[in-house]
Amino acid sequence: MDIKKYQVKTGQKVNLKNYPTSIDDQMNKKETKKRLMPDNLEQMRELQDRLYAEDKYGVVMVLQAMDAAGKDGAIKHVMTALNPQGTKVTSFKVPTRIEMNHDYLWRISKALPARGEIGIFNRSHYEDVIVTKVHDNVDHGKIPEKLITEDIWTKRYGQINNFEKYLVENGFKFIKIFLHLSKDEQKDRLLSRINNPDKNWKFSKSDIYERAYWEEYQNAYEEMLENTSTKEAPWYVVPADRKWFSRYLISEIVLNVLQEINPQYPSLNQEDLANLEQWKVILEKEEENTLRKD
Amino acid sequence: MDIKKYQVKTGQKVNLKNYPTSIDDQMNKKETKKRLMPDNLEQMRELQDRLYAEDKYGVVMVLQAMDAAGKDGAIKHVMTALNPQGTKVTSFKVPTRIEMNHDYLWRISKALPARGEIGIFNRSHYEDVIVTKVHDNVDHGKIPEKLITEDIWTKRYGQINNFEKYLVENGFKFIKIFLHLSKDEQKDRLLSRINNPDKNWKFSKSDIYERAYWEEYQNAYEEMLENTSTKEAPWYVVPADRKWFSRYLISEIVLNVLQEINPQYPSLNQEDLANLEQWKVILEKEEENTLRKD
Repeated sequence: MDIKKYQVKTGQKVNLKNYPTSIDDQMNKKETKKRLMPDNLEQMRELQDRLYAEDKYGVVMVLQAMDAAGKDGAIKHVMTALNPQGTKVTSFKVPTRIEMNHDYLWRISKALPARGEIGIFNRSHYEDVIVTKVHDNVDHGKIPEKLITEDIWTKRYGQINNFEKYLVENGFKFIKIFLHLSKDEQKDRLLSRINNPDKNWKFSKSDIYERAYWEEYQNAYEEMLENTSTKEAPWYVVPADRKWFSRYLISEIVLNVLQEINPQYPSLNQEDLANLEQWKVILEKEEENTLRKD
Repeated sequence: MDIKKYQVKTGQKVNLKNYPTSIDDQMNKKETKKRLMPDNLEQMRELQDRLYAEDKYGVVMVLQAMDAAGKDGAIKHVMTALNPQGTKVTSFKVPTRIEMNHDYLWRISKALPARGEIGIFNRSHYEDVIVTKVHDNVDHGKIPEKLITEDIWTKRYGQINNFEKYLVENGFKFIKIFLHLSKDEQKDRLLSRINNPDKNWKFSKSDIYERAYWEEYQNAYEEMLENTSTKEAPWYVVPADRKWFSRYLISEIVLNVLQEINPQYPSLNQEDLANLEQWKVILEKEEENTLRKD
């Protein structure tokens, strides 16, 4: 599968209307769910095992989208394949009072994965150039007023790019996914939360309020994608109207990054290798007393 | 399956030699792997989904064992079934300098799961009454000397019981698993790490050093099991010589606790339910302008 065509090129103008929200018509749903997807999940598992054993690189996966676009479902259906020892999901909600008392990257830094781990961000630092921008409420935080300048969003794009570049240069790779949902499909999904009693608990009236700002959100996402899709950490615009397709595409993108890292099981150093035979003899003969430290 | 027989009764004397390390002979390996285990994992997934949605109870799973008993494998093969959003694994290693600067439950508290989450502890606060006791090095920490009394272990059992009781009383359930491995099987597993080049990287000479203290470890585990298997948070002694069996038994124990919690998808309150129809009309007619806050 050619994932490059879903990648936002650095410096390119982005008009989301030109990006598909629906499937790539060369894909077959049944074949994808039965064969391609399980194959990818199996490969992801193997590569994660090596990533964890090698313990050198870390991966940060960022998921951004409009409500009901399938962020939770993607985590559940794609990332459940992974070993939870080495996988760390953080959901970023409206900042708490303690978080507001800090710069906006503070809570992000605290949630970063360690080497060998895959950190999944359900929403992220990008909320601070999306929802904050759409509702023009950067002053809800405690940032000094005189730092709220006209060019604050441009500054933040730069801050975010530098933050991510620093992490990439230190061995943490980024996977940035924007789930691109059509307005009609969002309506259908919100309606089904109302019509289906089992889904009622997922319904939030704030989703409908936010939907009223659809165009502003699309514009904020376009500007963000244009300014923060870097060589080090590119964005992918994943068509989200068909869940089976978006999940498969996400698995392809994750796999691609893991393959680039190409982690290896650690090999023992020469000295340890040479000593292995000696340990084998000790173990077989159980010369315990010589080993005790006391 | 009767999991009760693997549970340590409160106040009971424990002689680990009387606990099996091998399989329950009524079980069939093929049947367990092909049918029983996948069924359990599916049920765990469903219950976890409800636990997360209900967002009231949390679960703390503690895994303790001798080296090579299969803690990592159990996490990989049993807990991978879970949605990583809502699952949090913490591996407790030798305490860091910062951790040493605190009481021994400090790092444990920081790693506790939130409501709706399942926290898995790969080793735990029990290391502070096991390895520390075996090597008699409680003074490696920074606890004031005059607090290192003869009865320090009895005190610690009491502290741990109170800590866990407090959490249970506040909605956090404990699952405490001791993987009970035979000395012979440990030898075979350590030898296979030496003999199999692909497994060399897992070999650690400290495992062989620790093995020299096998009896002391068994004694420390026995005393710990006797003193900390409470009504609120009982211990299970899981036979660990056959991986397929121990993993299945663990899934049964986890399932049992989740079934006891019996979490439910939240239902809307009366007011919200009454309003649903109104939201439906708004959504269908897209009367956006009336919704905008600005």
